[in-house]
Amino acid sequence: MFFASDNAGPAHPSVMQRVAAENTGYAMPYGADDTMNEVRTQIRHLFEAPEAAVYLVATGTAANALALACYCDPWQTVFCSDLAHIQEDECNAPEFYSGGAKLSLVAGGDKLTPDALRSRIAAEETRGVHGPERGAVSITQVTERGRVYTLDELRALTAVAQDFKLPVHLDGARFANAVVALGCTPAEMTWKAGVDVVSFGGTKNGCLGVEAVVLFDPKKAWEFELRRKRGAHLFSKHRYLSAQMAGYLTDDTWLTTARAANANSARLAAGLRAHGAVFVADPDANMIFAQFPRHVHQRLHDAGAAYYIWDGTLEGSDPQEMLTARLVCEWSITAAQIDQFLSYFE
Amino acid sequence: MFFASDNAGPAHPSVMQRVAAENTGYAMPYGADDTMNEVRTQIRHLFEAPEAAVYLVATGTAANALALACYCDPWQTVFCSDLAHIQEDECNAPEFYSGGAKLSLVAGGDKLTPDALRSRIAAEETRGVHGPERGAVSITQVTERGRVYTLDELRALTAVAQDFKLPVHLDGARFANAVVALGCTPAEMTWKAGVDVVSFGGTKNGCLGVEAVVLFDPKKAWEFELRRKRGAHLFSKHRYLSAQMAGYLTDDTWLTTARAANANSARLAAGLRAHGAVFVADPDANMIFAQFPRHVHQRLHDAGAAYYIWDGTLEGSDPQEMLTARLVCEWSITAAQIDQFLSYFE
Amino acid sequence: MFFASDNAGPAHPSVMQRVAAENTGYAMPYGADDTMNEVRTQIRHLFEAPEAAVYLVATGTAANALALACYCDPWQTVFCSDLAHIQEDECNAPEFYSGGAKLSLVAGGDKLTPDALRSRIAAEETRGVHGPERGAVSITQVTERGRVYTLDELRALTAVAQDFKLPVHLDGARFANAVVALGCTPAEMTWKAGVDVVSFGGTKNGCLGVEAVVLFDPKKAWEFELRRKRGAHLFSKHRYLSAQMAGYLTDDTWLTTARAANANSARLAAGLRAHGAVFVADPDANMIFAQFPRHVHQRLHDAGAAYYIWDGTLEGSDPQEMLTARLVCEWSITAAQIDQFLSYFE
Amino acid sequence: MFFASDNAGPAHPSVMQRVAAENTGYAMPYGADDTMNEVRTQIRHLFEAPEAAVYLVATGTAANALALACYCDPWQTVFCSDLAHIQEDECNAPEFYSGGAKLSLVAGGDKLTPDALRSRIAAEETRGVHGPERGAVSITQVTERGRVYTLDELRALTAVAQDFKLPVHLDGARFANAVVALGCTPAEMTWKAGVDVVSFGGTKNGCLGVEAVVLFDPKKAWEFELRRKRGAHLFSKHRYLSAQMAGYLTDDTWLTTARAANANSARLAAGLRAHGAVFVADPDANMIFAQFPRHVHQRLHDAGAAYYIWDGTLEGSDPQEMLTARLVCEWSITAAQIDQFLSYFE
Repeated sequence: MFFASDNAGPAHPSVMQRVAAENTGYAMPYGADDTMNEVRTQIRHLFEAPEAAVYLVATGTAANALALACYCDPWQTVFCSDLAHIQEDECNAPEFYSGGAKLSLVAGGDKLTPDALRSRIAAEETRGVHGPERGAVSITQVTERGRVYTLDELRALTAVAQDFKLPVHLDGARFANAVVALGCTPAEMTWKAGVDVVSFGGTKNGCLGVEAVVLFDPKKAWEFELRRKRGAHLFSKHRYLSAQMAGYLTDDTWLTTARAANANSARLAAGLRAHGAVFVADPDANMIFAQFPRHVHQRLHDAGAAYYIWDGTLEGSDPQEMLTARLVCEWSITAAQIDQFLSYFE
Repeated sequence: MFFASDNAGPAHPSVMQRVAAENTGYAMPYGADDTMNEVRTQIRHLFEAPEAAVYLVATGTAANALALACYCDPWQTVFCSDLAHIQEDECNAPEFYSGGAKLSLVAGGDKLTPDALRSRIAAEETRGVHGPERGAVSITQVTERGRVYTLDELRALTAVAQDFKLPVHLDGARFANAVVALGCTPAEMTWKAGVDVVSFGGTKNGCLGVEAVVLFDPKKAWEFELRRKRGAHLFSKHRYLSAQMAGYLTDDTWLTTARAANANSARLAAGLRAHGAVFVADPDANMIFAQFPRHVHQRLHDAGAAYYIWDGTLEGSDPQEMLTARLVCEWSITAAQIDQFLSYFE
Repeated sequence: MFFASDNAGPAHPSVMQRVAAENTGYAMPYGADDTMNEVRTQIRHLFEAPEAAVYLVATGTAANALALACYCDPWQTVFCSDLAHIQEDECNAPEFYSGGAKLSLVAGGDKLTPDALRSRIAAEETRGVHGPERGAVSITQVTERGRVYTLDELRALTAVAQDFKLPVHLDGARFANAVVALGCTPAEMTWKAGVDVVSFGGTKNGCLGVEAVVLFDPKKAWEFELRRKRGAHLFSKHRYLSAQMAGYLTDDTWLTTARAANANSARLAAGLRAHGAVFVADPDANMIFAQFPRHVHQRLHDAGAAYYIWDGTLEGSDPQEMLTARLVCEWSITAAQIDQFLSYFE
Repeated sequence: MFFASDNAGPAHPSVMQRVAAENTGYAMPYGADDTMNEVRTQIRHLFEAPEAAVYLVATGTAANALALACYCDPWQTVFCSDLAHIQEDECNAPEFYSGGAKLSLVAGGDKLTPDALRSRIAAEETRGVHGPERGAVSITQVTERGRVYTLDELRALTAVAQDFKLPVHLDGARFANAVVALGCTPAEMTWKAGVDVVSFGGTKNGCLGVEAVVLFDPKKAWEFELRRKRGAHLFSKHRYLSAQMAGYLTDDTWLTTARAANANSARLAAGLRAHGAVFVADPDANMIFAQFPRHVHQRLHDAGAAYYIWDGTLEGSDPQEMLTARLVCEWSITAAQIDQFLSYFE
């Protein structure tokens, strides 16, 4: 009963088999391997972006920090949710890679609203050289609380960015889960919605450790390559990143795993709801924030269930009685495990 | 006939099998996996350093840049060969990670001598706050030209560093090849010889992409962890780094592959020598710099042999006639491939 | 009628005369001038801190950024008001000098409260290497809205910092105005109240451009010197910084000018109050935020009065009718100018 | 008898008087003062560059580091003499301001030759993302050993830079001394000779502390302004920088002081030559490197003469007998002081 994170599960067989299959003979290093050529073509096709620059790195933080650094000068500030991964969980990597840019936090939780974003940008009024300049807008899809922006919501946010002529970064660590939730195409969720650069996450969704960064403006390509190398993120045996991504794209594995993860989450959410749990945020994809009684937590804990306890309880709830859990479902969890988990509610 | 680099070959089966074997169930992320505990213990044992801090990263540049940053302030300068990988091939990653430290190049080629090192350090005379302060000494073992420092040579260099109270970093991208060449222990080649921090390379010697950084002073551990995370080099699915290293250490795979690589190189070197090729540097490990006639290069090239052509020819040679090749042997090259390569000399 | 800023007025004659007096013969460069020795002794005496490290720089931003960098690692975060000068008006200089540290903003306006500070620090919960580590607390005295922390208030804030073992930085761009407002000693407002490093501002209070940085822990001295030089803030003809500070300290000029500025402000505030203006914040020192009718603004503007219009109006006020002014009084403003300004309210 | 440096003497009366004269009433802060407008116009006129961006900073290191940062990306390398001030005497400020760029040293002493420069640039062969990219060329005029590039020599160097499409920075800490030595115009020594950005030094030549940075490409203006503010080098009471520069430009004071300094140096050099001293480098401007017997040094030292002893002696000289002095003449030294100095040779 492991619901702690989708970064704790195994890689999908399609990914692992491809890695093993590539483990023969010689391959050109540093991204010049044939598999990378194949991957680049596939991702461009997937995103309907024949000119896009496509690169692989091994961690989501590298994908975010490098992408933002290409779109944010050191004297600028990035606009993001006050719960954004780039703010909360990357140990100042965005600041490091950008050379000291600031993050301007939009209050109000995981999901940016156009009004909140606009007023935060406006508040960072331009004061000549004194204040930071306005830089990129960064959006996380799926959000850090498990919600998914609709395409309309995304477009409304990027429209705000465009009003201020700011570029838009999409943190897509759970990109596939969002695409599945929305039933849309990758293009619709990115450049067609006004996104300039996106990370197409693989690690949490069935890979060992690989994220594609897709820059829709190919003029940014060389700068990204230099920043990646300077950041020590260019793999010499790059084929093993390429192979992961190739396996991930084969037969739409990335959709298969995301569908499984989302379905697992839906099954778990339905069960929780049936047992009276209350959701802190709509469980739109594969991550659930649910409040339920402490004594149930105790039983689950004793049974070895793994998940994170979250700060705080919902308004009106008694913190002596209730506690909030973060429950993340990855693709490989079985229905039996979920049902076993739910059985402790009975 | 692939001799371009030891970063272009496959991973050893022991490594790949361990990665596949670990691909099941859940593992704690971010280095808290059980396999990492095992690896840490093994590496401490291997280095006879029960207190050492041990971390894994995926690239050699990350290993070097993070290790140096822990031992070099932004206002200091690192002393290294003018051919050092950290100078020539890391796109200013050491400068980036250290926050702008300088590299002071010791002239004279790949192999530092105590005199050259001492006089370079002395030349960076302390001028109060004006000049950079003296920082770490960085040594590459195997050197960038394929030579190996003897233990006496290493100790003579670290003695110079100690005279100036400077810490010593060892770039061990080809650590195993050097250990095999010297027939010494890892401890003898590191802390017993005065080294403070070393990268124990796996990538070039049979792994997919993993390097251990071993800091013999455990007080540096937490800083390294923060720098690694801030640099976006902490893997969430860390088990796949651990598994590589675990497979690499199993049954001394790391020695097996290094012995194979060195033996391949020795076979190739012997053949070249027999055919009159001249060595630019002693081929002590698995990398050969050899000069031979252009018409042989042409034949090899036509036959599809892959290797790098190096700048320059030896003094007294005619550059119209002769050309220098860098030939790197990795563990998986067969005797037949080597002999086929040599056949073009006949 | 110039109330735009205290950085627009002239230097006090005592300062200018000392600069002119020092302009003869030779003086050792880079801070080794005799006048600096004198200044160091005087400031140590003034702060009752015989061991303190004392340095001069030319700008308040340099003083803040260098001081913070000595007390905040790149993976940490500084706690400050969301209106702090280091956040709003330094173009990411603190991020630049610290190597990419973050600023964690305490909401609630210019004046930190212990509760707000404590809860902000607590919210930046330690998440191992993921989040930023907690770094320094930065307090501005006089605040950016013209208020002055009492000694009790300061001690309550530094007590919070001490609970988390965090160092405390005091931005003292208007240090003298605060000392005069409180009627306390420099020591009482700094190390006796738990402050680790302070900028003792001269620029806004009668100098041409000089700020002293006082580090009460002399072990930080050498790091500060290196950071100052690396930041290009070490003056070769340092005597002209020393001379300013020497003139500023002569016969308590710094207190004389601050008393004049505060008295000017009190006269202006009394007049404004008498004419029904409402204060956004208590005008404790030499800066007033006052709301009064737009038609008065118009009259003042037509008459050539210079001051900044501030965003927003007080709750319950009609923004069509009312507007907020920031009015800063420096030492050289005359009573006649103030009274002339006030005459437009009649 | 003070010959230690031209940064130890007083400011010229014309400069000091202008500073005092400006010390009245209010002036717009942060470079918006009227005097700056006047200075900008004058410098554009002086350089025959009506579009040039002109900024003032207080230190030569700031001028160099900020200018270079505008012309050198963090993954690039700057080409300069191995004796360059930016390499030897700025405590890694260029690395700090550029975000970690490298300096590639051209061996051969203070004066770059086209061949040495070309071969150093060529040696930094482009290796894709691996090596640093080639960045700016930085030339010091007057050199660190007191020599002056002729216009032909300058043009030959910038032609090399242009062959590689690299921008050219001129460190003009002693700009005026060079102009006087060459009898040329500022335009001839800068943009007409292929220079992109220059520091027009005031500090060493009669100011308190001010350097103009002149960027001939106005498209760099805004970036420079942001970098200056972020580096904490934008003065609030900017009028005092403007006033210095205004006084420096009044009645060609800058030429007057430079002529005096150079003439002082010529008188000293002639006397030294007459007494058999040998010059390490041609004393083209106001700085002399001369070798003479130790017993004369002793006499001078006993008499209180101040100057730096330099490492090394000329080939063929006996270091037991001879020693090298660096003797810098600034404008205010009197003929009597020089003659007194020379009297110790008799």
